[in-house]
Amino acid sequence: MGENRVMSESSLVKAFRDRAPGHPWVSVGPGHDAAIIEWKADRDAAFKIDSVVEGVHFVLEGEGAATPEQVGWKAAARALSDIAAVGFDPVAIAAAVAIRSDFPEDFALRLFDGLSDCCCRFGCAVAGGDMSSTRGPVTVVVSAIGAGPRGGAFLRKGASPGDALFVTGELGGSLAGRHLSFVPRLAEARRLRALGVVRAMTDISDGLARDLRHICEESGVGAVVEEAALPVSADAYARALRGKRPVMECVLGDGEDYELLFAVSGRDAARLAKEWDMPARLTRIGWFVVREKGILLCRPDGTVTPMPAAGYDHFRRPGGGARPK
Amino acid sequence: MGENRVMSESSLVKAFRDRAPGHPWVSVGPGHDAAIIEWKADRDAAFKIDSVVEGVHFVLEGEGAATPEQVGWKAAARALSDIAAVGFDPVAIAAAVAIRSDFPEDFALRLFDGLSDCCCRFGCAVAGGDMSSTRGPVTVVVSAIGAGPRGGAFLRKGASPGDALFVTGELGGSLAGRHLSFVPRLAEARRLRALGVVRAMTDISDGLARDLRHICEESGVGAVVEEAALPVSADAYARALRGKRPVMECVLGDGEDYELLFAVSGRDAARLAKEWDMPARLTRIGWFVVREKGILLCRPDGTVTPMPAAGYDHFRRPGGGARPK
Repeated sequence: MGENRVMSESSLVKAFRDRAPGHPWVSVGPGHDAAIIEWKADRDAAFKIDSVVEGVHFVLEGEGAATPEQVGWKAAARALSDIAAVGFDPVAIAAAVAIRSDFPEDFALRLFDGLSDCCCRFGCAVAGGDMSSTRGPVTVVVSAIGAGPRGGAFLRKGASPGDALFVTGELGGSLAGRHLSFVPRLAEARRLRALGVVRAMTDISDGLARDLRHICEESGVGAVVEEAALPVSADAYARALRGKRPVMECVLGDGEDYELLFAVSGRDAARLAKEWDMPARLTRIGWFVVREKGILLCRPDGTVTPMPAAGYDHFRRPGGGARPK
Repeated sequence: MGENRVMSESSLVKAFRDRAPGHPWVSVGPGHDAAIIEWKADRDAAFKIDSVVEGVHFVLEGEGAATPEQVGWKAAARALSDIAAVGFDPVAIAAAVAIRSDFPEDFALRLFDGLSDCCCRFGCAVAGGDMSSTRGPVTVVVSAIGAGPRGGAFLRKGASPGDALFVTGELGGSLAGRHLSFVPRLAEARRLRALGVVRAMTDISDGLARDLRHICEESGVGAVVEEAALPVSADAYARALRGKRPVMECVLGDGEDYELLFAVSGRDAARLAKEWDMPARLTRIGWFVVREKGILLCRPDGTVTPMPAAGYDHFRRPGGGARPK
């Protein structure tokens, strides 16, 4: 590793995985939405840490400014979304909050309220906290613990060629506001667990294009996404119009959707579509293929192109669909 | 809560405890060294989040500058010290690292090495990570999970008048360097669990004076500390000399000792002193009294004074023994 190489998130994640020591109980380490710990004979724990940073995940001034409650909500909801992504139920979070020392006490209390409201809604405890002062951006780091059946976690690996690709909700334009108040898909994940159809799953935090890539890489498969099938949010249309960007760039690359993206066998796909009884929309948006095909986007005119590089890298903004904000 | 009140750490912690939602499995929430989750019939989990922040817990330039490995080590060791403080064994940590985007990749990798080395030493997994870029200070937040017997966690509450007060190791002057490479007292905590003598325990992160106060407040007791009995580190003498401060100010207020501070019944105290067979020094430094007496310091000349306010508040530096750095 060169001394002067600038950091890229994916290479760091890889290096981190290679270096991370294990424990006999840890059956799934870094690289999935949450680590899985085999706690007892019939119950596993999911364990996740996640950060929201002022200027990256929210702003406190100007257009789109978040309230302290929204910052707290978002910080908790993101971590709970990762617990949903492995199909587990949340038990507790702990939060580390860094705030500038000249902020009024009210700011921290309102931020705690946002954290607590989110946890309350999903029957999750706030079991610990840490406060520090900072000269830098306001930062909230949340660690979450979830519980689920032994061996029952949904991972990014497990998709096979021929599996159908599903997504909950609608995609794109989250930064118009939804990213501050979204509801983590815990109820939907629980329903999917009960239906017993998921072969691989993740939540969409960095954009469909990037998060689908995570499933494909971990599962050793390729995928085809049908552009015409993608559920486009009204926010995505508005954002595309305003930013003079193609709407599909918003849908594939905006990120912060916090929807569930998952693989279901061809045989179960029809049953899932028929039995789905949750309020959140469920859409079949494509299918998995052999790894050699790569990840492809099937345009409405029938042409097939490689999936554009899109999504968000914390250390390098790609030339294509970089997040505008 | 007034809009313009400046934050104080302790009032925030209290507000946070009052507002934190619970979960049927969470038997101990905020306010102790770690939360306790009743995971299964015979095994509890300890859950902790903790931060180290550049400029507060370490510096990267100038005198006393930490290497990236030391930053990682300290971040992990602090969280493991909290697992030790409840007498549990570490299972896994997850770490959220915020680094300025122009840092070389090497910095992050070396920081991970420090985290990993510390976890390896104690048989703990690094099960997850999160990287973000920041314009502010380098920050490492570590969440740790530990395991122990059902109902067997050592808490800050449980000390009674008449109990003896013990401390491991030596106190003061940690900022001369020890704070970057200290060994969390996991082995000592395990030995204490086996001996079955601890009634209340914490680790000393904010200084003996402040951390003893935590035990007293949670247990509803007072305490007397015998100044002459306090185990003074060589670093404390050096630091006192250099800073022209009374050595006891360093011992009581420097913080970052990461030693175990605990209560043992009068009956068990003699047995503990006799059976202690660990390399770390063990010292009986005082005893607990009824709450109304407060927390007292018994000087070598026989006079008794209230324990000076000392230690570190992240949002307010007390007039007395504030941390000089």
